[in-house]
Amino acid sequence: MRATLEELAGRVGAKAIGPAGLVITGVNTIDRAGEGEITFLTNLRYARYLSRTKASAIIAAPGTDTGDLPRLETDNPYLTLAKIVAEYYAPPRPEPGVDPGSFVDPTAEVGEGARVFPGVYVGPRARIGPGTVLYPGVFIGQEASLGADCTLFPNVVVLDRCRLGDRVICQPGVVIGGDGFGFAPDGDKWFKILQLGVVEIGDDVELQANSCVDRAALGATVIESGVKADNLVQLAHNVHVGRDSVIAALTGVAGSTTIGRHAVIAAQVGIAGHLHIGDGATLTARAAVMNDVDPGDIMYGIPARRRRETLRLHVDLNRLPETTRKVRDLERQVADLERRLSLLMDGEEGKDG
Amino acid sequence: MRATLEELAGRVGAKAIGPAGLVITGVNTIDRAGEGEITFLTNLRYARYLSRTKASAIIAAPGTDTGDLPRLETDNPYLTLAKIVAEYYAPPRPEPGVDPGSFVDPTAEVGEGARVFPGVYVGPRARIGPGTVLYPGVFIGQEASLGADCTLFPNVVVLDRCRLGDRVICQPGVVIGGDGFGFAPDGDKWFKILQLGVVEIGDDVELQANSCVDRAALGATVIESGVKADNLVQLAHNVHVGRDSVIAALTGVAGSTTIGRHAVIAAQVGIAGHLHIGDGATLTARAAVMNDVDPGDIMYGIPARRRRETLRLHVDLNRLPETTRKVRDLERQVADLERRLSLLMDGEEGKDG
Amino acid sequence: MRATLEELAGRVGAKAIGPAGLVITGVNTIDRAGEGEITFLTNLRYARYLSRTKASAIIAAPGTDTGDLPRLETDNPYLTLAKIVAEYYAPPRPEPGVDPGSFVDPTAEVGEGARVFPGVYVGPRARIGPGTVLYPGVFIGQEASLGADCTLFPNVVVLDRCRLGDRVICQPGVVIGGDGFGFAPDGDKWFKILQLGVVEIGDDVELQANSCVDRAALGATVIESGVKADNLVQLAHNVHVGRDSVIAALTGVAGSTTIGRHAVIAAQVGIAGHLHIGDGATLTARAAVMNDVDPGDIMYGIPARRRRETLRLHVDLNRLPETTRKVRDLERQVADLERRLSLLMDGEEGKDG
Repeated sequence: MRATLEELAGRVGAKAIGPAGLVITGVNTIDRAGEGEITFLTNLRYARYLSRTKASAIIAAPGTDTGDLPRLETDNPYLTLAKIVAEYYAPPRPEPGVDPGSFVDPTAEVGEGARVFPGVYVGPRARIGPGTVLYPGVFIGQEASLGADCTLFPNVVVLDRCRLGDRVICQPGVVIGGDGFGFAPDGDKWFKILQLGVVEIGDDVELQANSCVDRAALGATVIESGVKADNLVQLAHNVHVGRDSVIAALTGVAGSTTIGRHAVIAAQVGIAGHLHIGDGATLTARAAVMNDVDPGDIMYGIPARRRRETLRLHVDLNRLPETTRKVRDLERQVADLERRLSLLMDGEEGKDG
Repeated sequence: MRATLEELAGRVGAKAIGPAGLVITGVNTIDRAGEGEITFLTNLRYARYLSRTKASAIIAAPGTDTGDLPRLETDNPYLTLAKIVAEYYAPPRPEPGVDPGSFVDPTAEVGEGARVFPGVYVGPRARIGPGTVLYPGVFIGQEASLGADCTLFPNVVVLDRCRLGDRVICQPGVVIGGDGFGFAPDGDKWFKILQLGVVEIGDDVELQANSCVDRAALGATVIESGVKADNLVQLAHNVHVGRDSVIAALTGVAGSTTIGRHAVIAAQVGIAGHLHIGDGATLTARAAVMNDVDPGDIMYGIPARRRRETLRLHVDLNRLPETTRKVRDLERQVADLERRLSLLMDGEEGKDG
Repeated sequence: MRATLEELAGRVGAKAIGPAGLVITGVNTIDRAGEGEITFLTNLRYARYLSRTKASAIIAAPGTDTGDLPRLETDNPYLTLAKIVAEYYAPPRPEPGVDPGSFVDPTAEVGEGARVFPGVYVGPRARIGPGTVLYPGVFIGQEASLGADCTLFPNVVVLDRCRLGDRVICQPGVVIGGDGFGFAPDGDKWFKILQLGVVEIGDDVELQANSCVDRAALGATVIESGVKADNLVQLAHNVHVGRDSVIAALTGVAGSTTIGRHAVIAAQVGIAGHLHIGDGATLTARAAVMNDVDPGDIMYGIPARRRRETLRLHVDLNRLPETTRKVRDLERQVADLERRLSLLMDGEEGKDG
């Protein structure tokens, strides 16, 4: 792609400052950019390159000193960078068409412009929205439905009756609609509780590699629009994740827990079942959440505590060796005091006696 | 399905109390059930719906007050519910047949009534039991064998020579028989130790999405009958899991560890290698088990401790800020005592002198 | 295979001690070995079998007392065992050939002696090295390249432009080159940052079942030669793992972290982003690493600490109930001392007054 700085500014909602007609042909890091390329400075470690970059322009927040380099001014340089990268480097959608090496049930519907690669299976009465891409090894169960412009990478599985909105991205190996982990005790044995529900996924959701979303026992496991989940995440039956929440790798959310909007859940977190995590809460890496979390709270540790309590506990834990030693010293001192005081009192008694 | 309350009672081993010939056509929650449906009360939060439910009958334990609603009386209402749900809603088995879009080696045996979907691979001398269903993308290695009425969901992999019993369910993406993690140090490098063993799985086992069971170095990794494992569980080489044990999501069991019968292992647990977990032990969520666990013990925390020790430690940890403060106060008090006592003794000495 | 003890010694770099021409036909454990088999003693629990084993020879370090059994003497018996097992039991490579039930793009190159099973997809301009085996359900994206003699087990996914060296082994379900978890905040929403980089994997790397290596945002996520990763491991975008490092199951490494050579990372470890783990460092199971780790350091716990600090903390934590009780006792004693000293001083004052 080629665009002038001004055209680019219009597309991404920024302000062009520099010569009219300056043509931008690509994006690159500040140490590697060449003529025609626009660069950025999201990490201050690279500020020293500013004076000698060969870039033709830079993305910068108002007030940043970037010398006399032409600039694309924006309040959110990181977002603007992401948008410009998407303008220049978005891969072309695969050509539409249903490959004869795929299996599409005659009762299934495949929308216009969709691409079905060889080795895909689409079951009875399933619906694939227009522009959606199914890579090899994808399985779509019966009566499952996918919206428009989804991308399901190789070996993604969407089981019967689950529903995905528009522009959903599933990285390879994602499993949507596997049975929830539900068994009733029957003496020493376990009787499988049929998982009759489904999974419902909104628009613009991305689930990354080998993550799993179980179908509900009854009703639906719900992933609202805009949610992003990293690799190897486990979302159990009847979980509900609110709009625009993000969940990092190797995190597990147990059954029936609800997560509000725009929560930020770091890696290797565990959340027990039947809890509620409030809107905008943050669960830091490895947190073990055993109770409801209030909106906006930031939780740390095992079991998860609020920031202040955690810091307090950490300080005290770091001080524990010293505290233990002090207690030993105190015991010695007190014993000594006891002894001396007793001597003194004996003396007094002697005197009194 | 349609059945009278009496017929239903016979099938699930309960007692019908109500009009002869009352026909039950389905199951529903107490707030949504309509005429002809049977309901349940497994969560007391819903008791308030009891007086106004439109259900025709209810599953209840003897002695529960359910007004004059006809009832199916049973000592284990949760189990009875699971059984009735299975009676009404069990999905039909797929039609038998080997799809021409699958690859079945001519030396493999496929039992009567089995279904092999397109995109399945069955290797040389493998045996697929009668009634077993292999969904698209399933791989069965050479000389592997599966019993009767198993269900392997899409993209399940069973590698060479592994053996599954009857009625085994593997949710999508399960890997059975991948190599164990075994390498011998060779200077700075690692020399792969061939994993010559297999995986042996009993009857009525369920492994959920993307879980992994590694083949043994020598001999067999064994999952006994009735075991249930949730999503993203890792069972290493030469692990042995006893009958009817359950293992929740994201748990890892290291090599050669044995787990007894009917153990309950919660989510994100880790068990070190070469240990023994006794029958009926419970490992709570996130426990890090570094030593053998006695039968029936309940273990908590990192490293895992028994309940009493854990509670004690938690109380003490919660009290740690107070304890730390107390030690500081004590130091001040003791210093003050020292000073006063010294003054007094000096005085005494002065007096004595 | 059949070989004399002497031939065997030559092949694995050991020393034969025993009758010339002694023929060895296989390897077995000390309790099960029969005539013609060679055995080993890597676990001292089995030493009692030494006097009655039926094995014809034993692998042993110099100086080990193995009676008059012929021996293969070596400084590293475990490594020699692994090598001998490989001599006798290495499975034959599958016959070469591209199955007509696979899809190989006409612009892709498949090297001599490679085997492509049915159900494989090889994309445009991809290169498959000589002798490489692709099992059913493997996906190779466009312009991806694989070296010689790799083995990709069923359902492994290698996405566009990623590169693997020679003799790489991927157990089933491995995903190489899924998008990194990168999103720029856009008000309440998240804007996907295109992941433009690749994954580069050296020679002799093994990644085990369902593990994930994300492609870089820019540049490359790098796994150097000789690295071994267990099942369900997560390596985020722009991670760099140095030569011959090993990583056990369920471990996650966050974005842009670099790991030196020959590091040993145990199971369920978490490493935060943008850190450096030095050469030869050891991270023990469940460690949560929040800071750089020096070469050779051994780290424990949450957050990860060095051995000495961890042991100190554990001792103090185990002593915490006792410490808490002691503080309570001290408070009583000090109050008593205060009281007695005050009485005494009152007395003194009385006397003095």
